[in-house]
Order: sequence, then C-alpha cells, then structure tokens
Amino acid sequence: MDHVSVGLLGFGTVGTGVVHLLTDDQEKLKERTGCSIHIEKILVRDKDKIRKIKLDNRCLTQDARDIIDNPNIDIVIEVMGGINKAREYILQALRNKKHVITANKDLMALHGSELLQTAADNHCDLYYEASVGGGIPIIRSLTEGLAADRIQKIIGIVNGTTNYILSKMSQQPVSYEEVLREAQALGFAEADPTSDVEGLDAARKMVILSHLAYSIPVNLEDVTIEGITQVEQEDITYSKKLGYTIKLIGIAEYENHLIDISVQPTLLPIQHPLASVENEYNAVYVYGESCGETMFYGPGAGELPTATAVVSDLITVVKNLSLGITGHHIFLPNLKKQCKPAEAIASRYFLRMHVFDKPGAFSKVSHLFKEQGISLEKLIQEPLIRGEKAEVAIITHETNKQAFENTCQLLKDLDVVSDVKSYYRVEGMN
Amino acid sequence: MDHVSVGLLGFGTVGTGVVHLLTDDQEKLKERTGCSIHIEKILVRDKDKIRKIKLDNRCLTQDARDIIDNPNIDIVIEVMGGINKAREYILQALRNKKHVITANKDLMALHGSELLQTAADNHCDLYYEASVGGGIPIIRSLTEGLAADRIQKIIGIVNGTTNYILSKMSQQPVSYEEVLREAQALGFAEADPTSDVEGLDAARKMVILSHLAYSIPVNLEDVTIEGITQVEQEDITYSKKLGYTIKLIGIAEYENHLIDISVQPTLLPIQHPLASVENEYNAVYVYGESCGETMFYGPGAGELPTATAVVSDLITVVKNLSLGITGHHIFLPNLKKQCKPAEAIASRYFLRMHVFDKPGAFSKVSHLFKEQGISLEKLIQEPLIRGEKAEVAIITHETNKQAFENTCQLLKDLDVVSDVKSYYRVEGMN
Repeated sequence: MDHVSVGLLGFGTVGTGVVHLLTDDQEKLKERTGCSIHIEKILVRDKDKIRKIKLDNRCLTQDARDIIDNPNIDIVIEVMGGINKAREYILQALRNKKHVITANKDLMALHGSELLQTAADNHCDLYYEASVGGGIPIIRSLTEGLAADRIQKIIGIVNGTTNYILSKMSQQPVSYEEVLREAQALGFAEADPTSDVEGLDAARKMVILSHLAYSIPVNLEDVTIEGITQVEQEDITYSKKLGYTIKLIGIAEYENHLIDISVQPTLLPIQHPLASVENEYNAVYVYGESCGETMFYGPGAGELPTATAVVSDLITVVKNLSLGITGHHIFLPNLKKQCKPAEAIASRYFLRMHVFDKPGAFSKVSHLFKEQGISLEKLIQEPLIRGEKAEVAIITHETNKQAFENTCQLLKDLDVVSDVKSYYRVEGMN
Repeated sequence: MDHVSVGLLGFGTVGTGVVHLLTDDQEKLKERTGCSIHIEKILVRDKDKIRKIKLDNRCLTQDARDIIDNPNIDIVIEVMGGINKAREYILQALRNKKHVITANKDLMALHGSELLQTAADNHCDLYYEASVGGGIPIIRSLTEGLAADRIQKIIGIVNGTTNYILSKMSQQPVSYEEVLREAQALGFAEADPTSDVEGLDAARKMVILSHLAYSIPVNLEDVTIEGITQVEQEDITYSKKLGYTIKLIGIAEYENHLIDISVQPTLLPIQHPLASVENEYNAVYVYGESCGETMFYGPGAGELPTATAVVSDLITVVKNLSLGITGHHIFLPNLKKQCKPAEAIASRYFLRMHVFDKPGAFSKVSHLFKEQGISLEKLIQEPLIRGEKAEVAIITHETNKQAFENTCQLLKDLDVVSDVKSYYRVEGMN
C-alpha cells in the first residue's frame, strides 16, 4: 500500500491544524508510514467562506455522504464536534469499513461503547487520542505504556479553562467573575462557559480515562460533579496559608471491585507535582500497582497540540492498514460496574466557616468533630474585620464522605457557627 | 499463535521483577495478547543460590547458549547489565532470529546503532523502554505519541540518585558528602556512585533520547558532562534566595541542523514543573514545534517500575509476533550529526564568588561584565562571617557559553575577586 485517502468531517480550528500538518509534513509522514496521505474531501458548512488555507475548491463539500459513503476514502477524521450528527456519521463510516479518528470527547464519553463496538464489529480502527489532554499522549500511555500494570487511581487536571481561572485567582487577589471575564476576552473561556466551569467537560474526560484504565463501562451519571463557580478568593487564601493550592481535579479510583469517579475543586499540597500545573496546561497523574506514580503533562487544548494528536493517530491507522492489522486494537470494557458508596469514600477535607467570637465557641465546634469521629490536622482562626466573628479554616485527617457531610450539616445547626462558607476535599500527602 | 517462549539473561532485581509479573499476571497477559507466555530458561551465575522466587531448577542455566541458541525460545529479555557479554549475547540472539527486549541503557547508549541495525537486518524486534526513566513510557511517547511533531528540545531529570542527593541538600542544610552516605545506606546510591554522581548515567540516557527524538546517531563523546560532586550547600542556598532550585539536568537541543547535548547541574525556576520532581523521581520535559511543552514524570528506577516497562515491551513484541509484523518498528537514525559550537550555545548563568569588601570592588566586577557584553538579571551580595569579604551570587541574562566562560576566567584575574566559587547554567523562564 503506497497511498491512503482521508476525509475530514469539519474544518474549524482543529481541522485547519490537521490540514496544515498533513500539507507541511507530507514528506516526513511518507517516511514514517511508507505511504502518501491525500486529503480527498472536507465537510464544511459553507463552501464559499473565505479561509486561512488555500485549497482546491473541489475538495470541499457540504454533504457528509461525499465522505462517509465515498468508496475512495479509507480514513475519516471527525473534527466537527457536537453529538448527534457526529455519532451518526461515524457509525455510518464504520459500517462502510472506514477507519475513524475523532477528537470529540463529548461523543466518546456519551457513546464511546457503541462506537467502539461498531468499530470492532466492522474490523475497523477507532482512535481518539485528541479527546483527552490535547497534546498529551495519555490514552496511548494508558493502553500501551502502562499495559503491564494494574492502575489503581488516576487524578487529573483535564480542563484548561478552569485551571486557567483558578491559577489566576491564586496569583492575584481577584474574584472568579473578574478572571472569567478576562479569560473570555483572551479566548481561554467560551462565551457560554457552563460546560467548563461546571465541571462537565472534565467529567467527560474522566469517563474516557476510567473506561481505558479499568476496563469498566462507566457513564457520565456515575461521576460526582462539582464546578468552580462557588470558589472564593478566601478559599484560595486560606488554602495557601495551610500549604495547599486549589485545582479542579478529576479522580477515578478502583478498589476492591468498586469504582468512584468525581470532579471537584480539590486542595493539593503545594509540593505535589500537579500543583505546579498552571494556567491552561493539563496533567494526568496515574498510580499503578507496579509502576508507582507517573504523570503526563502538556497543553490541554489548542489548534496544533490537538491536531498533532489527531495526526499521530492517523500515522498509527496508516501503519495498521499497511500491516493489515486494523481493528485489532479496539479496547472494549469487559468488567462489571459497581460504584463505591459514600461511606466508603475516604478523604481528607478542607472546611472554612464563620463562628461567633465568644467564649466556648471553639470548644463546641471541636466537640462536634470529636463526636463525629473526625480528627483535625491543621487549623487557622483569624478575626474577621467586621468584628464579633472569626473565620476558621480546617484541614481534617482522613474521614469518609458521608461522615464529613453529616458533620457539615450539624455544624450549620450549632448556635456558635454563623456560616459554613465552603468545604472541599484534600488530595495527596502534605 | 497461542504460545510464546521467553528466555531471561539475568535474574537480579529487574529479572526477579519480570518473573514476578509474568507469573502473577498470566491470565491478564493472555487476555491482552491472546497468547500464553512461558519462561523457558533463565541465565544465572549460580544455579544453587537460594532465591526469593521458587522456580523449577531445570529452568535455570549457567550457559547463555541454552537461551540465545535455543530453538524453542522466541524472545530474549536481557536484564543482566554490563556491556561486552550483553552485547555479544544480544547480537547472537538477533542473528538467531530471536526478538530482544533490554533494560540496558549503558549498552544502548554505546552500541545502540549496531544492535538496532542487526535487529533490522534480521527482521527482529528490539525494544528498550526500560533503559530510560524506568516506569515512565518516554521512549514509546517519543516514537509514537509525538510522532507527528518536530521535537526541538528535551530537558530531563534522568538520574534518580543525583536527584535524591540534590533534593535532600535542598530540604536540609547538609553537605553533599553527608547525603551521599545516607543515600548509600538507604540503597538509593551504589557503593561506587561514580557513574551516577559524575553524570555518566544521565548522559547515556540523553544519548538514547536524542537518537530517538532527532534521528541523529549521537555518541557519549558528543555530550558535555558535569556531575554534582562540586555542588555546595551555599550554591543551593543562594539559588533559593534568587527563586531557583538546582537539579542535574540533561538538555538535548536541535536547531538549524545543529545538535547540542549536555548534562550539568542547572538552576530551574521553582515554578517550573521539573522543579517539583523530588527525590528518586525522574521526568522528561519535551518541547515540540506543534505540541508545545509536554512532561513525562515517574519513578526512574526500582524493581517493579523497570520490570513493568520490560513486560510492557514484551506485550508489544508478542502482539507483533501474532500479527507477523516484528522488525517493522526499528528506528534507525537517518540524519547527519553536526554539533553546535560553544559560541552558539545560548544560556543564562548563575555565578557565585567571593569579593574583597572594599570600595570600588563591585564597580570593577560590573564593569568587566559590561565589557564582555553580559548583562545581569539578579544579584545578591551578603557579607561573609569571616569579614573582609562578601559573597556575591548573580543570575545573568542570556549570553553564550564561550563568552561566559571567558568572563569567569577574567573575573578570577581581577584583584578585587578572591575566588569564583561556582557557576551553573540557568534553564527556563522565571
């Protein structure tokens, strides 16, 4: 085989990046794969739109069938985004025995099992490295590099927008709202940032990673999701005083056949390698039974990093085609899912509250913690400027989620507590 | 193919780890490869030695020919270490059409090209993930994940012993000699630590990484090597005051067809992701033209991480065997080597010196820097307890290696300078 033809579904930022790389690096790609790669068709919304890249106009089409039903096309690259149409096109392409590469995390998180099963049934490849962590080869590392290990836990900073916002809030005393507006102006946050700031985007990526790491068919509904909209500057300030930083962290843990997946603002010790992941960068920290702790760090998004991941999948598919081994690498989850109950989820916690500054107040608070079987590791109390009240920030020793949330409820009912302002889990040893 | 036979050359720490994993995970491996993997023979020095693992005694041999010339063996795993015998055995095994996995960085750095060529000539696989960064799948990431990118620079902490020593010196005010003794007692440093502390081990790994990243046949002689034996507690203290940490860093850079590889104690800004790589951990930071900055972090050594990397190579070879594609993935350097001259090597520098505390001393020093065209970014001067002298620590702006080393020579000749204590390069923006 000395020639493959590719069709692109979508010609936005990532699509443009892919076309750039395929055009600029033609010779290098030929050298690496033994094959010349030709772009046959690109699906666009408007053929006549003026574009950054000059391309033969006959290459563009507004009809997806020109790609998914085109007998000349071997490989379909889906970079259009969205769910329903992308799903439909990919399924049809696979049924037509075309190999598929997608950068679509939303689609893989929602319909990954169906798409992978269809690929397997048709002996086709389906690769999706670009769907998690942009330029970081994390999916490849999980499926190949760490293949010999048993993965116990994955913790990841997998959303660039929220990491950018929390980094800025940590660098300067600015509010969430101010940084969000700045991030939107700079293009680091979307006009409607809901999916990012509410933790949904990160949750989808954790679903994809969990599926790969544990071979379990998890859904988005299995993920506990909490976004960053309620994180206040005071939470960050007190975290720092206690030796921590706040990040939006996804955790997927598998223990005794029970899985637990969550995305939540989380305190990390400042010495933790994930704590130095700043701004729009992403990182995934993996605990393997044999390998110990490994981390993969890089740009979480962006035209070229994402396009590079797509092209790197393309190289793999072209090699597989040459070797006649397409469809051999589909990885279908083969274990049953059982989720961990709240009373089995162990964690340390950070809690910030306002108490009335009168004799015996703190004794009542500490008595309650003792009663609930939760011991305290670190504590700061500072007077509030408005007087009469004090602000208290606590790091607990390990407890379980159920017990901690009960305690928060009971604290709110104490007459000496004016307000429980916030609480977050704490990850990593200090 | 439902069955492969493996021979091990060596049964030390890593060999034992490999046997452990192959025995414990038999079913999982079969599931992943479709093949049962059987250990046919293990080369040992003494068959009768008492071992941690119980094995059929007939499995052990003291004659390498029972493995490398054994027609029943498909794959040879070399975990014996050393150069000459290991090279000879691997060459013979490849000529006998056996696929080879090695964890031997010394061998790959010295004879990699010859071994890879022999593997290619015999259509055999030769994998060596464990040779760099133990449990970190860095070789796989360079050859596959980042395959679509052009790599511009690699900076790495690739030696656990020296990173352990420098981390401890940074955590407590102890001398190099004290920490080395402690590291030896704990097994983090060898009885003869020369190869680690003089930077040779790190240099070998940088040779392997450069070969892969740039497709250039580099040798150990092309690497500028400086170890950590001369690093003093004062260097670390002043670095901290200036916002930096000192690590033994390997840098391999490729620019305008010129390569430069070096291993030297280097200052890194404390916010740099590599700065939080502590103790025996390793990390490799990669700059790609498209991907931007990515980092791979993990345990640099250890029985299980290294054994996991070996088994993960084994899984790949077994799959390649099943698919009939062994020998397709050999990567031979195809570009010519040209090294960068000292006057083209740009860097910032840290310099620590003692000056006589008299009027005009500092003016003479700063005049000399100005004359040499080097501007200063940061400076600290503190009186020395013994009086009469002051200690000065400087971070320069970017200059070239040649100019900086000339300046150090001229500084030594200045009458106001008592002693140039140390200088190191500075990497990364602050």
